[in-house]
Amino acid sequence: MIRAGLTALIISVPLAAPADGIRATGDLGVVIERATGSVLVVDQSDRAALCRVEGLGDLSHASLTFSPDERFAYVFGRDGGLSKVDILTCTLENRLVQAGNAIGGAISDDGKLVAVSNYEPGGVKVFDAVTLEQVADIPMGSKTVGLADAPGSRFVVATWDTGEVWVLDHLADPANPQITRIEGVGANPYDALMTADGRTYVVGLFGEKGLTTLDLWQNPPQPRRILPDYGKNQPDLPVYKMPHLQGWTLAGSTYALPAVGLHQVLWVDAASGAETSRTDVAGQPIFVTARPDGRELWVNFATPDNGAVQVIDGMTHQIKQTLQPGAGILHMEFTPRGREVWLSARDDDKVVIYDTRTYQKLGEIEAQSPSGIFFTARAHRTGL
Amino acid sequence: MIRAGLTALIISVPLAAPADGIRATGDLGVVIERATGSVLVVDQSDRAALCRVEGLGDLSHASLTFSPDERFAYVFGRDGGLSKVDILTCTLENRLVQAGNAIGGAISDDGKLVAVSNYEPGGVKVFDAVTLEQVADIPMGSKTVGLADAPGSRFVVATWDTGEVWVLDHLADPANPQITRIEGVGANPYDALMTADGRTYVVGLFGEKGLTTLDLWQNPPQPRRILPDYGKNQPDLPVYKMPHLQGWTLAGSTYALPAVGLHQVLWVDAASGAETSRTDVAGQPIFVTARPDGRELWVNFATPDNGAVQVIDGMTHQIKQTLQPGAGILHMEFTPRGREVWLSARDDDKVVIYDTRTYQKLGEIEAQSPSGIFFTARAHRTGL
Repeated sequence: MIRAGLTALIISVPLAAPADGIRATGDLGVVIERATGSVLVVDQSDRAALCRVEGLGDLSHASLTFSPDERFAYVFGRDGGLSKVDILTCTLENRLVQAGNAIGGAISDDGKLVAVSNYEPGGVKVFDAVTLEQVADIPMGSKTVGLADAPGSRFVVATWDTGEVWVLDHLADPANPQITRIEGVGANPYDALMTADGRTYVVGLFGEKGLTTLDLWQNPPQPRRILPDYGKNQPDLPVYKMPHLQGWTLAGSTYALPAVGLHQVLWVDAASGAETSRTDVAGQPIFVTARPDGRELWVNFATPDNGAVQVIDGMTHQIKQTLQPGAGILHMEFTPRGREVWLSARDDDKVVIYDTRTYQKLGEIEAQSPSGIFFTARAHRTGL
Repeated sequence: MIRAGLTALIISVPLAAPADGIRATGDLGVVIERATGSVLVVDQSDRAALCRVEGLGDLSHASLTFSPDERFAYVFGRDGGLSKVDILTCTLENRLVQAGNAIGGAISDDGKLVAVSNYEPGGVKVFDAVTLEQVADIPMGSKTVGLADAPGSRFVVATWDTGEVWVLDHLADPANPQITRIEGVGANPYDALMTADGRTYVVGLFGEKGLTTLDLWQNPPQPRRILPDYGKNQPDLPVYKMPHLQGWTLAGSTYALPAVGLHQVLWVDAASGAETSRTDVAGQPIFVTARPDGRELWVNFATPDNGAVQVIDGMTHQIKQTLQPGAGILHMEFTPRGREVWLSARDDDKVVIYDTRTYQKLGEIEAQSPSGIFFTARAHRTGL
């Protein structure tokens, strides 16, 4: 009862003046509140919430991307909703339901196009970033997953039903992208990852073992299988959740990634694609995220171990810290130069903040069932 | 006469409303106007100047760094001046002359400390980023060069007179940094470079051949010599300018760097420190800067070839474009995801903007003897 009352209070009271004159945006962020269809705008420097924006629909599996000026967040909801939030004025500037069921999106490197990956009706739709008017509709005869931006007004996406990767090049004509279609990627891609340089696209496969990578500097890119034993037919425990490929990390020349159904983190040589070692961890890992300097990797876990977070030394591959930041740790976001990490504790209704050098807790912020945390510095990176 | 008249006009007329209500900062930048002691605040999205801030002293060899929220630029002048510019209100918020002769600075990863590297009286001074009050003064018995931030409230600097590197760790007590002093780095360091992960510090030597690297993950770091023939006793042409080490690029596992006194770019394997190949270019290179995706490197040149810019393919190491963007090209800055490059044409009094995919000119901005161009996304990166 007390908990419910507090939550109601949070909803009804403005958290702060959303637009008190002048405010820079480099230290802002947006937290998805998955159960209430709302987002919380947060300030890294003050370790505080600024305001809440509501009415974004089903955010049970939501992500977002930022405009290059860091003013607008484009929020991709599971219900096909595409919402444009002005984080400086704390308003929902525009919203449309562009499909029946969607799974993420991306913004082009010139900031002009926002693309959304759809389960229903499938394919990709592309919108004008200013007006949200539809610019292009590319049906692919399949559900699509793992949509990411690549340099040069390009988007890359994988097709669940047909096992392909499509590269959409909008450089010459935004409304009529040149399409490069790569077949034979593997059975049922369920997610994908773009490396930070926009060169390598890694596709996770649900329908068979292993993963497929594509070198986008090749013309046309050729599918290459790596980690042939990854993912299928090997769990010794029930698989509670297929790990997102965004839970992978490329630190130096080594990938660190969550094993599927095992209490292990895998280390893979990026050049050869071969596994080099494993680290035993406290549960089934979900995200294996490098601190921006690559010296440490922070790991969170699927239920029932989702109250723990472990820190792995990037050189020795040994566990160096085990923390218990809260209940239901769904996501970890580092401040851009890595000094702090912000963790969403869904079942505690708060975001918890740690210093990554001292491992001391620095603060916490009330939030309603928080999931993804997104800092504005993402606006300046490829593949996010 | 016409040129002088235009310049006077630019000075006397406000360029735009500097604070027209709400403005996000992710797409802003600051251009150093070296001859007039002023800086120009620019907007990437509009490809336009917003306003000018004057009274910053001698900016003939100036650099700057941004606060984490991207609101403030800390400008380091050659005359020892440290100026704090509010780029949202377009005002000089604070300024002090902290030394007789200075050469760059850095901001700590928590945004709380600003450090300046001094020629006269030498050593490093550290200031509170909010008030500019002095926090620490670390005399080193030497001129200092190549000051850079490292993760964990640390600064790293090289000493010209004594051939050392000092690591200043302000984590436990900002006013009394723990000092790690590494001797035997080499004769007369003249500049240094920090890699983007904050791990490797590369020191250029004026007093002997070769360069020295330090792995800051070692405790204590051990000096390691690389490229034993680099820099001295080999020029076949007069050396017009020692290249800044900020002109180096680490693209993938390969360094690309300007040769000294030669019309060549050198390629060096980062792991072994050995030269692997050379590319002939149009003059003595100054900056060899990778487009953010690493696929291309853009090169500018010392006089008399400083009207040209060349683009090298990162895979083939061949020249793929030669451009003539203007007179006296001093600096190149990419938009964060690499779609545009902005070039300062000092002797044309303008900044010129190119699309990095089509190589078409997109626009230009009037500026007074522009030199360095700094976009706010730098706030989120280590070692800048």
